[in-house]
Amino acid sequence: MKPVIAINYKAYYPHSFGEHCLRITRDAIRVKNEIDVEIILAPPFTELYRVIRESENTGVKVYAQHADPVEPGAATGYIPIEGLKEIGVHGVIINHSEHRLKISDINWLIKRAKKTGLETLVCADEPEIGAAIALLKPDMIAVEPPELIGTGISVSKAKPEVIVNSVDLIRKIDPSIRILTGAGITTGEDVYRALKLGTIGVLVASAIVKSQNPYSVIREMAVNAVKALNDS
Amino acid sequence: MKPVIAINYKAYYPHSFGEHCLRITRDAIRVKNEIDVEIILAPPFTELYRVIRESENTGVKVYAQHADPVEPGAATGYIPIEGLKEIGVHGVIINHSEHRLKISDINWLIKRAKKTGLETLVCADEPEIGAAIALLKPDMIAVEPPELIGTGISVSKAKPEVIVNSVDLIRKIDPSIRILTGAGITTGEDVYRALKLGTIGVLVASAIVKSQNPYSVIREMAVNAVKALNDS
Amino acid sequence: MKPVIAINYKAYYPHSFGEHCLRITRDAIRVKNEIDVEIILAPPFTELYRVIRESENTGVKVYAQHADPVEPGAATGYIPIEGLKEIGVHGVIINHSEHRLKISDINWLIKRAKKTGLETLVCADEPEIGAAIALLKPDMIAVEPPELIGTGISVSKAKPEVIVNSVDLIRKIDPSIRILTGAGITTGEDVYRALKLGTIGVLVASAIVKSQNPYSVIREMAVNAVKALNDS
Amino acid sequence: MKPVIAINYKAYYPHSFGEHCLRITRDAIRVKNEIDVEIILAPPFTELYRVIRESENTGVKVYAQHADPVEPGAATGYIPIEGLKEIGVHGVIINHSEHRLKISDINWLIKRAKKTGLETLVCADEPEIGAAIALLKPDMIAVEPPELIGTGISVSKAKPEVIVNSVDLIRKIDPSIRILTGAGITTGEDVYRALKLGTIGVLVASAIVKSQNPYSVIREMAVNAVKALNDS
Repeated sequence: MKPVIAINYKAYYPHSFGEHCLRITRDAIRVKNEIDVEIILAPPFTELYRVIRESENTGVKVYAQHADPVEPGAATGYIPIEGLKEIGVHGVIINHSEHRLKISDINWLIKRAKKTGLETLVCADEPEIGAAIALLKPDMIAVEPPELIGTGISVSKAKPEVIVNSVDLIRKIDPSIRILTGAGITTGEDVYRALKLGTIGVLVASAIVKSQNPYSVIREMAVNAVKALNDS
Repeated sequence: MKPVIAINYKAYYPHSFGEHCLRITRDAIRVKNEIDVEIILAPPFTELYRVIRESENTGVKVYAQHADPVEPGAATGYIPIEGLKEIGVHGVIINHSEHRLKISDINWLIKRAKKTGLETLVCADEPEIGAAIALLKPDMIAVEPPELIGTGISVSKAKPEVIVNSVDLIRKIDPSIRILTGAGITTGEDVYRALKLGTIGVLVASAIVKSQNPYSVIREMAVNAVKALNDS
Repeated sequence: MKPVIAINYKAYYPHSFGEHCLRITRDAIRVKNEIDVEIILAPPFTELYRVIRESENTGVKVYAQHADPVEPGAATGYIPIEGLKEIGVHGVIINHSEHRLKISDINWLIKRAKKTGLETLVCADEPEIGAAIALLKPDMIAVEPPELIGTGISVSKAKPEVIVNSVDLIRKIDPSIRILTGAGITTGEDVYRALKLGTIGVLVASAIVKSQNPYSVIREMAVNAVKALNDS
Repeated sequence: MKPVIAINYKAYYPHSFGEHCLRITRDAIRVKNEIDVEIILAPPFTELYRVIRESENTGVKVYAQHADPVEPGAATGYIPIEGLKEIGVHGVIINHSEHRLKISDINWLIKRAKKTGLETLVCADEPEIGAAIALLKPDMIAVEPPELIGTGISVSKAKPEVIVNSVDLIRKIDPSIRILTGAGITTGEDVYRALKLGTIGVLVASAIVKSQNPYSVIREMAVNAVKALNDS
């Protein structure tokens, strides 16, 4: 199984939009060409089209940052799963700590995405929530204690037990779900540690998106992810 | 002043997305080339990029269906005003009846949009709400009684007094705000009547978006809008 | 283990308020004096004080219909767990289908309630959601397909497999959690069937609250609940 | 016209609940007996019953901190206007900065409250929002810049122009609406200044609710309010 580097572009300005967004995208593709990792890009809704075109036939996957729990139809300013599929995303992030959802909507979205052929990466802030979500059968779960998000303090360093407990609980429910570490992942070392704690990858935002040199950050993370898997 | 045909693509599937979305866009541009009206297109977030490219240098304007009342930054799955500006929209719909906002957020978004150089089209469901919104100084207000939206029963026929009262109240507050009629606009006759009641245009969705022939519907509406203005 | 009749007064007017509310309360106490069941009363927030005073030393328990996921403090118009404890409730309903919560808030509320000494009754609309919630360790789970709520069509009759699957999944996670059947419970026969399907009680609203004679409805339900347990 | 001291108990623990809540209530009644001001008490939903009983025939008014924009009926954990009327409140606070509402819901609630015979006190954080709300015809508007709430920095000192502008704009729309100053009101001097800026009273929370001696704080505020009116 390949390690996963999932990049949440969030909505930083100007970093997450326009040319900046494309630069991150190209840097990620360059790393993908050099190192055998799975790379997931999650730009803002409005940038999905360009990022998808840019990454065609590169092996890089594009996810939406969120899907609204609405049926297609008279829904102004909402993007249903079907609209995301149409534009060409591979998957969708659900229940990010900055976009928490009702449990019934998480369940509905996972089922709808599956039916539509989209992968799902669901966020959880505590081990037992990770386990609860595992019962709803997403493809991936990212464990990210919200108090560490955006702090530059890696969860794999500050709260390793949250990761270890989450991995333990989620595996008991469903060992086929891939688990990522989120929150505060900043350096290659953080990524190495995250994989040594039993997860298969990381969900990263500001450390890459706001970097002067996204390529070097993504590369360092990818190198460390592969190293961590080989060391085990 | 030119009459306004504003098209809310909503999130119909497949109508509002992909090739269907582009077809509506091209049909609207074709009408714009033939008739001197202002045309506003409001596709889903994910389709904005393509619709904006398609309509470059055509005089047609592109609006977002909504803007999230968030600052740019760590905001996953939200699109701030700055992100919309970056992709190239001319304006934004705010407070659609399918996406109602808090009054403080409406105020914040109008100010933010103005500062960023985006136009604002704010929806109101009752005359006094239209007047209240007028105090917040948007560019346009669309009056649309929500019980008629999507019914095919035109507000200009079923509840002309809602339009007349709204126009009256909003004009008293700020005569520079352009007023549109929304809800149930289906035919050219509905458009004609809407403009005779004192509004300068219409906000239309399903009648165009779900039509077999968007071009002919848009054209008929544009013709009637011009006719109504000339008749007065 | 005693069967449970939980009565959600909802916000019917005038049924759920004032004298009507007290009448239901007294009728429930009367049944409690006659039949050995656990009775839970969940009146609106504003009626809690009177219902708690009325039911003191009767063995009947009083629950809030909801708790807001807020810390005590500067929170206008919200009732934190501590405020409910202070007024004297025994427990709280969480995530009712008419008041769905984010999964992180459900988790937070269950923990907070436990710490404060309140029982928790969490609603779930599908078997896998029931299982997911079981991992968060509430005292009770009510399974209620929302499409049947208020219909008078009992879930135990129309969708017995939802109940059976829920009981099955929840038991596997945590056999100590008591499971109730909700949605459309109208008659004693519905209650009997609900308990035969493996749940320990019912969550009922309109059939009791809007009845001309709450006493007779509650009594019939209690009688059938006891009968179902004795028959097994 | 009498000056108004409106006390928002919020949800401080233990201050806003149980015996503490009753003590504030009794202290306010004592001031009312001594000084000719209008006193409005807004305790949490769960405490309304006791506060209403305590203040019967004292001339003190009791308001709810919020009303949910729901029709009476199948609404679990929500309190419709009719439920508040039934328990005996005189009015309701709407759109507090800690409980912001959609503009259409503010409009609906004001109309519903009026029809039901309840007074409305609507909060606004900026002058133009105050003016917009004035068009919806509430009985009172409280102007409170949210960044000062709970700071102990009085808006009447830190941002007098917000009050002056609000009074000016609201008066132009409807001079019959009584205007209160909120946010950071801590001392009698703050109250004096608030009334000198043209408002008729104050909306106060922590300065009274968290005080060791609510009586002396309320009294000082009432004395200063009367003095400010007499001085003009």
